[in-house]
Amino acid sequence: MTKQLAEIRHLTAVGVGPGDPELITVKGLKALQAADIVFVPQSRDGNKSLAWRIVADYIDQSRQEVVSLLLPMTRNPRELVPAWEAAVDVIEGKLSAERPLGVYVLLGDPLLYGSFMYIWERLNENGLGPDVQVEIVPGVTSFAATAAATQTVLSMTHERVAILPASYETIANLKQMFETFETVILLKAGTVLPQLLETLEQLDLLDHAVYGERVGMPEEVVVTDVRQLLGQKRPYLSLLIVNKRINEMF
Amino acid sequence: MTKQLAEIRHLTAVGVGPGDPELITVKGLKALQAADIVFVPQSRDGNKSLAWRIVADYIDQSRQEVVSLLLPMTRNPRELVPAWEAAVDVIEGKLSAERPLGVYVLLGDPLLYGSFMYIWERLNENGLGPDVQVEIVPGVTSFAATAAATQTVLSMTHERVAILPASYETIANLKQMFETFETVILLKAGTVLPQLLETLEQLDLLDHAVYGERVGMPEEVVVTDVRQLLGQKRPYLSLLIVNKRINEMF
Repeated sequence: MTKQLAEIRHLTAVGVGPGDPELITVKGLKALQAADIVFVPQSRDGNKSLAWRIVADYIDQSRQEVVSLLLPMTRNPRELVPAWEAAVDVIEGKLSAERPLGVYVLLGDPLLYGSFMYIWERLNENGLGPDVQVEIVPGVTSFAATAAATQTVLSMTHERVAILPASYETIANLKQMFETFETVILLKAGTVLPQLLETLEQLDLLDHAVYGERVGMPEEVVVTDVRQLLGQKRPYLSLLIVNKRINEMF
Repeated sequence: MTKQLAEIRHLTAVGVGPGDPELITVKGLKALQAADIVFVPQSRDGNKSLAWRIVADYIDQSRQEVVSLLLPMTRNPRELVPAWEAAVDVIEGKLSAERPLGVYVLLGDPLLYGSFMYIWERLNENGLGPDVQVEIVPGVTSFAATAAATQTVLSMTHERVAILPASYETIANLKQMFETFETVILLKAGTVLPQLLETLEQLDLLDHAVYGERVGMPEEVVVTDVRQLLGQKRPYLSLLIVNKRINEMF
């Protein structure tokens, strides 16, 4: 790298995929291995180790610096905003002319329910735009991995797909979604799973759903008969795929 | 590989991603390179070369056989069904105890609007289930790549995403979608682009949309001011991402 290039600092957000380290893209892997500094978001409930495990196999800690960023798993802006601001300060402080290449790793895809966009917004607000070049490397989503693991078709040619953050939905709204969409993907389903499954039961959809949790990780849970989960709360990184075709066509 | 293993034939559907050869996953690449036979769907309008270009760099044609499967780009079942059946016959005929590892390559993700599921359904109907083991390797979608290329956030934590095959939608239905969903992704938008953009104009959403066509390929077209496209029809492999945040927040 020439001196001129090194005067620009780079931050590449890499979606490392849903959990299986081999579901990182070739492009993401190259960015990761070229990085001087690898930023790994970390939460108190163990999410750090999930993203970390994926990158741990691929990086060289004798050459590359790994920096944890504490991002609490909460909706409370009074906790979140200071955490994002602190993360931005850390990123700004670490990227330098000598070590200009940073990578920010995320599970799944960076722009679909990721933490990076909140950091990015603040990087822009701080006027870092011209000085820190941001690039995004897309990733495989958790729902694509769950569909693959359960051999569930997400959508045929003419079908509509709704992706919903389950814990923000009302039951009435969910019912309407199932009427309008052939496929409904309920993300972050675990903590509200009892209510979701009850709604599916009322709508006679229990036989037309599959459940995936940390798919591709050693702790993977995949359930194709979701009646087994009735009444259970499950972890946050979990989802349901609902489509009337499930258990009908194949 | 032991003789015992070779008695089972394998067909792995690999989502090679949206266009950039580096957006294949490590897992997909390994499956591709391990394959004896690589099945490449081909249509009359040049789609063959799109998937083909992605795999061409990665395979060794002195060792691996490449087989084209003709799948017309049409909704007419009188053309489609015989094409799928012919493809199944080809796959069955090619996979053997001597050459048991087949890969079927698709753009994007195999289970989201892919051609593989139609082939798969017929493989199952032919009773091949116990003899041909099917595996799915998920892939990066075209909308994730378009979001990355245009630096467009697809969804913040609380937002809902609708994925719609644009050419099947009515204008009235689209209007309702924009009211209900923070983010609407319109796939296969090119052929109906004039109507779609007219609807966006009526709803005052023209400034809140980005357009991507063959993103990551040499022919990539990315447009962040979609007014430039008013009145134009564009190719099939194209999409719009609409979200009121676009051009507002960042």
